[in-house]
Amino acid sequence: MAAALDFWFDFASTYSYPAAMRVRALADEAGVEINFRPFLLGPIFKAQGWTTSPFNLYPAKGGYMWRDLERICADLSLPFQRPDPFPQNSLLGARVALVGLREHWGDEFCLEVFRTQFGDGRRIDDAAAIEKILARLEITAEPVLQAAQSADNKARLRSQTEEAGRRGIFGAPTFTTADGELFWGNDRLERALLWAKQPR
Amino acid sequence: MAAALDFWFDFASTYSYPAAMRVRALADEAGVEINFRPFLLGPIFKAQGWTTSPFNLYPAKGGYMWRDLERICADLSLPFQRPDPFPQNSLLGARVALVGLREHWGDEFCLEVFRTQFGDGRRIDDAAAIEKILARLEITAEPVLQAAQSADNKARLRSQTEEAGRRGIFGAPTFTTADGELFWGNDRLERALLWAKQPR
Repeated sequence: MAAALDFWFDFASTYSYPAAMRVRALADEAGVEINFRPFLLGPIFKAQGWTTSPFNLYPAKGGYMWRDLERICADLSLPFQRPDPFPQNSLLGARVALVGLREHWGDEFCLEVFRTQFGDGRRIDDAAAIEKILARLEITAEPVLQAAQSADNKARLRSQTEEAGRRGIFGAPTFTTADGELFWGNDRLERALLWAKQPR
Repeated sequence: MAAALDFWFDFASTYSYPAAMRVRALADEAGVEINFRPFLLGPIFKAQGWTTSPFNLYPAKGGYMWRDLERICADLSLPFQRPDPFPQNSLLGARVALVGLREHWGDEFCLEVFRTQFGDGRRIDDAAAIEKILARLEITAEPVLQAAQSADNKARLRSQTEEAGRRGIFGAPTFTTADGELFWGNDRLERALLWAKQPR
């Protein structure tokens, strides 16, 4: 069985942007299979008593995060624009991603959502924004949006978010291994890949 | 002028342990001068509405942190024992550290406090514990404890903690550079050293 790593993210998560941009090349190099697992941080934050991003609730931490992310993107030569508003509602994007991940364009869609939001600083939180992203991937939006909003697909996202909670996920990005290890943060990606290859 | 980096920590901060154990060797290698800056997280957490460590307030995050720290220490071949209670009151340790940093034994004292607490899982929160640590460094405890509890020295620690707040520090370890950059976390140490050498 090939080594595998689950990559858990919410589209509104800032540090998930560099993680998403890095994960496939690093995983290929390591010979590890990556499963994209979009979920919603909202219910998980709510369970901790937070009504918005902790980066908004704690201004010193938030100010630091934006500067840190800017430096990280510069180091990686990734475009970076701080989106406004922040955080954006990632519900529709996550539902569409789940449709794409059952077809052949899920990973590409996810990367394009992150690029649009944090590379270009644009909106990703409504149907028009998602349609533009699908158009760039040459995917016909209407049937996808319909599938995304189906009762089945909504339930699938709820269940994915519940699984994140059961696994002890409290933030994003998070990487989980088959043997139950959890690695939180863009800066843990390399260690997580190594663990996936050589559990200890 | 030699490149320099300020290393801000609270003795109760878990991730400050591997940072403290790593910082001097990495700084020597990079040719960067390190200034140990103990301060108190308590007043800074209180300003964010927290009455204890966020790792205790948010159990999922806390559980993750202990496992993550265990893995980090294993990777570094550092001894690790989870201390009980957690967090410990770091006030006396920080005051004594400030005395030591004005003499010649400050860095060694700080490293020994971290080793005692997180390497051996022992207490560091009362005079008896601090006396044992001083004894291992062959320092006579009585005059040190007296100097540590002097009004001047108490004010010095308050002022160091206030400076941390003014610099935007919200957690530990934090590294700050002469040009005002702030790097938070053990995993940012390497990047901070590089910045101290080559500001950008």
